[in-house]
Amino acid sequence: MPETQTIRGEGPIRTAVVGVGGYAGAELARLLLAHPRLLATPPVFFGRASEAGLDSSAGGGRVPLEALHPQLGLGGGGRQPEVIAFSWGMVAEAKLDVVFLALPHQASRNAAPEWLERGMRVIDLSGAWRLHHEQHRALYGFEDSDARIAAATQASAVYGCPELHRDRLPGARLVANPGCYATSIILALAPLLRAGLIDVDHGIICDAKSGVSGAGKTPSPNTHFMHAADNLSAYGVFGHRHLGEMLEQLGLGEDQVQFTPHLLPIPRGILSTIYVRLSSRSTADAVEACLRGFYADSPLVRVRAAGDLPEIQHVVRTSYCDIGFALAPDGKRLVVVSCLDNLLKGAAAQAIQNMNLMCGFSEAEGLL
Amino acid sequence: MPETQTIRGEGPIRTAVVGVGGYAGAELARLLLAHPRLLATPPVFFGRASEAGLDSSAGGGRVPLEALHPQLGLGGGGRQPEVIAFSWGMVAEAKLDVVFLALPHQASRNAAPEWLERGMRVIDLSGAWRLHHEQHRALYGFEDSDARIAAATQASAVYGCPELHRDRLPGARLVANPGCYATSIILALAPLLRAGLIDVDHGIICDAKSGVSGAGKTPSPNTHFMHAADNLSAYGVFGHRHLGEMLEQLGLGEDQVQFTPHLLPIPRGILSTIYVRLSSRSTADAVEACLRGFYADSPLVRVRAAGDLPEIQHVVRTSYCDIGFALAPDGKRLVVVSCLDNLLKGAAAQAIQNMNLMCGFSEAEGLL
Amino acid sequence: MPETQTIRGEGPIRTAVVGVGGYAGAELARLLLAHPRLLATPPVFFGRASEAGLDSSAGGGRVPLEALHPQLGLGGGGRQPEVIAFSWGMVAEAKLDVVFLALPHQASRNAAPEWLERGMRVIDLSGAWRLHHEQHRALYGFEDSDARIAAATQASAVYGCPELHRDRLPGARLVANPGCYATSIILALAPLLRAGLIDVDHGIICDAKSGVSGAGKTPSPNTHFMHAADNLSAYGVFGHRHLGEMLEQLGLGEDQVQFTPHLLPIPRGILSTIYVRLSSRSTADAVEACLRGFYADSPLVRVRAAGDLPEIQHVVRTSYCDIGFALAPDGKRLVVVSCLDNLLKGAAAQAIQNMNLMCGFSEAEGLL
Amino acid sequence: MPETQTIRGEGPIRTAVVGVGGYAGAELARLLLAHPRLLATPPVFFGRASEAGLDSSAGGGRVPLEALHPQLGLGGGGRQPEVIAFSWGMVAEAKLDVVFLALPHQASRNAAPEWLERGMRVIDLSGAWRLHHEQHRALYGFEDSDARIAAATQASAVYGCPELHRDRLPGARLVANPGCYATSIILALAPLLRAGLIDVDHGIICDAKSGVSGAGKTPSPNTHFMHAADNLSAYGVFGHRHLGEMLEQLGLGEDQVQFTPHLLPIPRGILSTIYVRLSSRSTADAVEACLRGFYADSPLVRVRAAGDLPEIQHVVRTSYCDIGFALAPDGKRLVVVSCLDNLLKGAAAQAIQNMNLMCGFSEAEGLL
Repeated sequence: MPETQTIRGEGPIRTAVVGVGGYAGAELARLLLAHPRLLATPPVFFGRASEAGLDSSAGGGRVPLEALHPQLGLGGGGRQPEVIAFSWGMVAEAKLDVVFLALPHQASRNAAPEWLERGMRVIDLSGAWRLHHEQHRALYGFEDSDARIAAATQASAVYGCPELHRDRLPGARLVANPGCYATSIILALAPLLRAGLIDVDHGIICDAKSGVSGAGKTPSPNTHFMHAADNLSAYGVFGHRHLGEMLEQLGLGEDQVQFTPHLLPIPRGILSTIYVRLSSRSTADAVEACLRGFYADSPLVRVRAAGDLPEIQHVVRTSYCDIGFALAPDGKRLVVVSCLDNLLKGAAAQAIQNMNLMCGFSEAEGLL
Repeated sequence: MPETQTIRGEGPIRTAVVGVGGYAGAELARLLLAHPRLLATPPVFFGRASEAGLDSSAGGGRVPLEALHPQLGLGGGGRQPEVIAFSWGMVAEAKLDVVFLALPHQASRNAAPEWLERGMRVIDLSGAWRLHHEQHRALYGFEDSDARIAAATQASAVYGCPELHRDRLPGARLVANPGCYATSIILALAPLLRAGLIDVDHGIICDAKSGVSGAGKTPSPNTHFMHAADNLSAYGVFGHRHLGEMLEQLGLGEDQVQFTPHLLPIPRGILSTIYVRLSSRSTADAVEACLRGFYADSPLVRVRAAGDLPEIQHVVRTSYCDIGFALAPDGKRLVVVSCLDNLLKGAAAQAIQNMNLMCGFSEAEGLL
Repeated sequence: MPETQTIRGEGPIRTAVVGVGGYAGAELARLLLAHPRLLATPPVFFGRASEAGLDSSAGGGRVPLEALHPQLGLGGGGRQPEVIAFSWGMVAEAKLDVVFLALPHQASRNAAPEWLERGMRVIDLSGAWRLHHEQHRALYGFEDSDARIAAATQASAVYGCPELHRDRLPGARLVANPGCYATSIILALAPLLRAGLIDVDHGIICDAKSGVSGAGKTPSPNTHFMHAADNLSAYGVFGHRHLGEMLEQLGLGEDQVQFTPHLLPIPRGILSTIYVRLSSRSTADAVEACLRGFYADSPLVRVRAAGDLPEIQHVVRTSYCDIGFALAPDGKRLVVVSCLDNLLKGAAAQAIQNMNLMCGFSEAEGLL
Repeated sequence: MPETQTIRGEGPIRTAVVGVGGYAGAELARLLLAHPRLLATPPVFFGRASEAGLDSSAGGGRVPLEALHPQLGLGGGGRQPEVIAFSWGMVAEAKLDVVFLALPHQASRNAAPEWLERGMRVIDLSGAWRLHHEQHRALYGFEDSDARIAAATQASAVYGCPELHRDRLPGARLVANPGCYATSIILALAPLLRAGLIDVDHGIICDAKSGVSGAGKTPSPNTHFMHAADNLSAYGVFGHRHLGEMLEQLGLGEDQVQFTPHLLPIPRGILSTIYVRLSSRSTADAVEACLRGFYADSPLVRVRAAGDLPEIQHVVRTSYCDIGFALAPDGKRLVVVSCLDNLLKGAAAQAIQNMNLMCGFSEAEGLL
């Protein structure tokens, strides 16, 4: 068993998940419960009052985690983790260090400042704090009660893509965990863009496909099995919210990237097929070297050899993003394929990766 | 009850679907539009005001059928069928002969008497009129505003399983179209029970599995793709509503049949695995002869040779019920497997089959 | 019942499917058996000797069609269609007019000349005769025993895309039925290209996704359920055979079109997402008018309003190709989405459509 | 049989998987690589020469594990585990303590004696050594070159169901890991049978449904996506091999248990619906107490409250078997539902559980 790591010199770190009832919440719970650095200080799980009888008098504001996520129950003799109804009193009692907010966008926008104010570090999994440019944020239509606090909070937020911002995470107090689509596309393009290999003015096409868990747990006509199964549909053409983060992180303009998401008839996983024109003729070796060099020290990115394209099955239920490519015989047209599990490297595992770096743990601890 | 209206002799029949917005409604529309006897008198489709903008002033109470069911649109130059908001005025104008009610149970229970009163023949696809025994009907908790009318209507209803009640359909004014599970189990057992082959006191086990369309179009946690996909679950053990019709139609008691439905991760299709003990040792040839004899003149039932079990794929998108079996070496324990498409032989195709018989058409017309 | 149409003045036409055992063969059989012009002359089905016991002495070279395709069996009392082992003697006896070859590419390349020589008209569903340019044909690696005959046969072949070559079909003796991917992309692009709307030098990206039936019936690691399910994978990047037909039919060069097929975890259906740059700023109305104008008389193409994108579910089990689009606010970048059922408009239904036109029937007869 | 080799006291144990290329092999590899007791002595993986280029001169008889199972590769900087071509020389060099055989039935039947003879302990995942009664073994048609050795080996084999034979595992040299179906049914029935609650003469019906991975990795018509997807089929009625183990372990006769497996259109997971008649009227509380008592110290079995039935989704990708039930109002008819992941509690995780007990580790170590 590894030594317990201290944070801020105060002993073992204490964590919580706020909004454990959703799909990302379930994955956070699973990963945190098994995290080797947290064995002595099990995470606290807060649920919405309406979930699984949390609001009934019977449970006294507590239900076993398995009531929300039966797959997470323990066998004979095990002490079941609990979900508790949220209150600031419970928060104070828990003496938390790091909090994962797995809430709707506006709810996170409202809540994060107070958590920070009370001295906790926040990893936010929503889109609340990812966007620095106002015109991108407009896609979410946030309503901030105090614009000054919102602006200051926004300014302090670190975009939690460790492969791009690893150095900024140890000091971060608010981490905006990236969107799932955005992660798959940013990781595929960043190395090539930074190396100046891409003719950005020609335009970049990102044809992305995601499993249904990306659409969230609330039942709707689009997530009805009869609509999603045996089907494929494009949506959000020219207007998906994740486009904003891609542009900001990659330093591109709106007319340089075209992003079309599709809804796949599978539970989990994203595959992005990305079409770029190189700025000058290149070789498969050069492209591969560029990608491998960029990710040489990144434990959660796997670069594939030229022509060996990743598939969703290779990454589902793993914390990896896999990147492969094929270069046209003309040496100019490049197809990059990027895959990840939208609930893991696209959400919960990336959040834990951020926590690891914030707390001085090994980057992939608890994720492999 | 009004006098029986003559259909033959008065020209082509006019039909309507009330509640065309659901899954069974879509299949009814598709089948009626292509029915060779109805080419001159296209069916009328009534939708709920809330569907597809029927309540907006823009459409004037009319929307193209493809707005509700895009797969049913026509290509270049075709005149699109329309869905109209329901009103008795529109009904009167349409001079309908036969009406298909594809409504929620209670709505059909409320509505059917008035349609009959106005002189139309009704084929009801809900559970409103299937059950003659009050204790079975109690499962639905119907609330009848006029108990006398409800009782008289109920008494006149014919259970629309043509393979059992073919002779009663020509004169029927109200046909209660059977449930999907019930159809698959009744068709499998009726021949063997009538021939006295089954030891009913030993108990009959019906382990049935259905695709998700059986759960209807309204989004719910159970029909969310993330719950239904890659899953299997049993539900309604010892209390499913379809058990009542099975018992009534097969003449069995509640302790003689055990029925366990399961939710399959597929859009359509039912497979029922039925376990019976024979009353005396028998042979595969005798069992096959019993089934084949019973269905010799039934165009929508396919009996398989001994040991050749049907699969859901054989019947999906067809109007058939396929029946196969395997007999244990002891000649006593029999497994019968029965498959059908829950939206076709389990709903819309059986409703058309009933219409065909009511109107003197060939039984399978428009269904093969 | 419509009048029986004559062909070559010799009475009702007689058809056959050669290679009825595959997926396209099954759909051809289903459609031909129900075709209103062929009720008096049921189609003949030839199977491979190795299929379903055709080579056993028991069946005398005949098996019921349902032995190969259980879903196509008939109910009580119906006379089952048969599959017979191929021989030229049987062909002569059948006095065939039109033959559908549903064979592997090389087998069709070998066989078609002899069928033509014996006086029959041929609709070939393989890739044997689609390509006029030798460098495209090279992708298939055909080995022709008589190069002169092969060249003459090739020269006579009409590419069976009725929306492009409707006028050439009545006189065609050999029709090369298009590939499934190619159909979806050609139908989406042809109107826009012919109208000169597309900046072809910018390059066209075709990101296409197909269900597993496109990979054929022979079991392989890629079509194993465990590989295909819950997965998505790109394949054949920069080298798929269908690219050749697209280029020839659209009059484009290899560096102008990029085509990336993906394997979807569904049985049937293709969705192609196509990215083009317009040659000058345009409007959604102009794009829609272009598409609608082109397909005004095409019964099997459905054009959608701007922004209303088709989904695979809208076309599966139908004979339609659905085309929709979204235009960027800049009026320059256009996304076209095209959907069809790869076994129907992408294979069997298009073959019947070709037959209808060859024989003077109504174009969509037996297909709606 | 050689003398029992001491494991504890001699340092860390060394393990190997023989036949790592299949689905169970992949899960074994994943679990062993992460097992906290094996971090210092990584497992050795033997593959078949024909797999992933093991027989090519290029790799020198070694390929990275990710060549066979891409999901198991490591990210930037990680040292990739290797698969090596099997040879006894490599085995000797590896100084193995415990070997997992993940081979075809006959191959394990042939190989196990030599591994034992060479002093290693064997956990066999095939059906080679599960059956003590010759008539049950006959279902596999084993051909033993030396009947005496085979009989002695068979006699020494412990059936590796820890919940039934926990005490025999520490001393076991050959463990026959149970079948997946058998595990789900034995765990559901054993507590009730041992408590005498079941009327065994009435007969027990086991209607079981399994995902496709249970059918193995070799492509076949039944595992083709087009056959398995959107389908359900029963198979092996009255003759499945797993019936033998159930009967032996439960002490029942062939006429007392009816077992019908079905092929589900999902990758992983088994749900068994089991119908029994109780020997006398009972209550839900008594049934639940019986199950909970039996599994009080079993960390990999989760018993559910009365009426709360487990679903496949609750156990997939976990090491658990979940057991729930519903009792009829008559207190006599009981339905037990049992779920597990066929590759984990039905194969690899159970094998590790057996290893843990053989080696004195905590039973669920590395499995939660």
